[in-house]
Amino acid sequence: MNIKGKFITIEGMDGAGKTTQIRFMKEYLEDRGFKVLLTREPGGTIIGEKIREVILDNSHKEMDSVTEALLYAASRAQHVSQIILPALQRGELVLCDRYVDSSMVYQGKGRDLGYKPIKKINDFATQGLEPDLTILFDIDPQLGLQRISSRGKGDRLEEEKLQFHIAVHSAYMDLVKMYPKRIKVINANCEIQEIKKEVEELLKNIIEEGKDHEIIDCYCS
Amino acid sequence: MNIKGKFITIEGMDGAGKTTQIRFMKEYLEDRGFKVLLTREPGGTIIGEKIREVILDNSHKEMDSVTEALLYAASRAQHVSQIILPALQRGELVLCDRYVDSSMVYQGKGRDLGYKPIKKINDFATQGLEPDLTILFDIDPQLGLQRISSRGKGDRLEEEKLQFHIAVHSAYMDLVKMYPKRIKVINANCEIQEIKKEVEELLKNIIEEGKDHEIIDCYCS
Repeated sequence: MNIKGKFITIEGMDGAGKTTQIRFMKEYLEDRGFKVLLTREPGGTIIGEKIREVILDNSHKEMDSVTEALLYAASRAQHVSQIILPALQRGELVLCDRYVDSSMVYQGKGRDLGYKPIKKINDFATQGLEPDLTILFDIDPQLGLQRISSRGKGDRLEEEKLQFHIAVHSAYMDLVKMYPKRIKVINANCEIQEIKKEVEELLKNIIEEGKDHEIIDCYCS
Repeated sequence: MNIKGKFITIEGMDGAGKTTQIRFMKEYLEDRGFKVLLTREPGGTIIGEKIREVILDNSHKEMDSVTEALLYAASRAQHVSQIILPALQRGELVLCDRYVDSSMVYQGKGRDLGYKPIKKINDFATQGLEPDLTILFDIDPQLGLQRISSRGKGDRLEEEKLQFHIAVHSAYMDLVKMYPKRIKVINANCEIQEIKKEVEELLKNIIEEGKDHEIIDCYCS
């Protein structure tokens, strides 16, 4: 595949301030002459939206976690083939809010399906397309929870939520160990402007690199 | 997993007379005291039906073949976890009209995605559940096409259909080579009663075997 663009994904738990920083990133890159496609699953594909309706339908309580993981992968497959790959082939810079790493964290660890099978089904789903750079906004789980929760602390539900945030954080740290070259961690406990500056340093490096994408031709081997 | 039942799948191209023979099989097995669950995807699961609506929606012309393969696997995952595995755990005999082999043939070969990736995503989808026996109704592609087609032959569409039937037949033969112990071929060019007799011989062997299922614990390795 002939891919001239750059592919950057953004990860991190809710409350880490991803949305604000992604806006900054888009501005920063556009100011430097890049045509930027900002996207997130299902990425505006009709098929992806239909798949997400099936996943998120509250009446589907009996959904198996394996089914769920395959549906997320299917939605991603359509997003990649219909939106992301064509943009990269046109030479655009694609900023994607959450990608395979989120499935590793939320399905692989969160649903206890394991990283390896989740990686394999997603290698198939993405045709082996890996990001040039992944920026992980890392926040202290307690602080992240405070930011998204307006309710008081201390009750059982809050305690459960905290445990979940700690597990998500720990899963992201597993990924950082697995992909140290691709995933760059930003300390999102800091002030917005400080974070922005750190992010811009990372972007500077990646846009100065001339390298094209590598596509694993023989995926799922 | 503690599975006491037996799992038999039925394969073959359209026009091979599967439906009639499956009815005979059910009767034969029930006459011998088995509680038989006859099923086919989506197996009556609400989630599976919703997924199939997405696959079969004619307006989804832009669906990528990778998305399609993952959706079939997702529908199968729900069918296995909600219908097939519980029945096998209750000790029932499950007859399933089409299973993973159909995806190998129609997505792996038909959509040119390859057998290996299709096998991997389906090992994940089925939690490694393999049939005790697969009966493949094998018919001459030309004869199969004649049986399902009421139109005259010779036009371009018919010629394309014949090429497709030949490809499906050839893919099934690949699978027979890959899984010679599990897949048993029945010559479906013969008369109904002859075929019925051959099938009953196969069923006799499988119900006399005492062996339980093997579940691959470490699927997708």
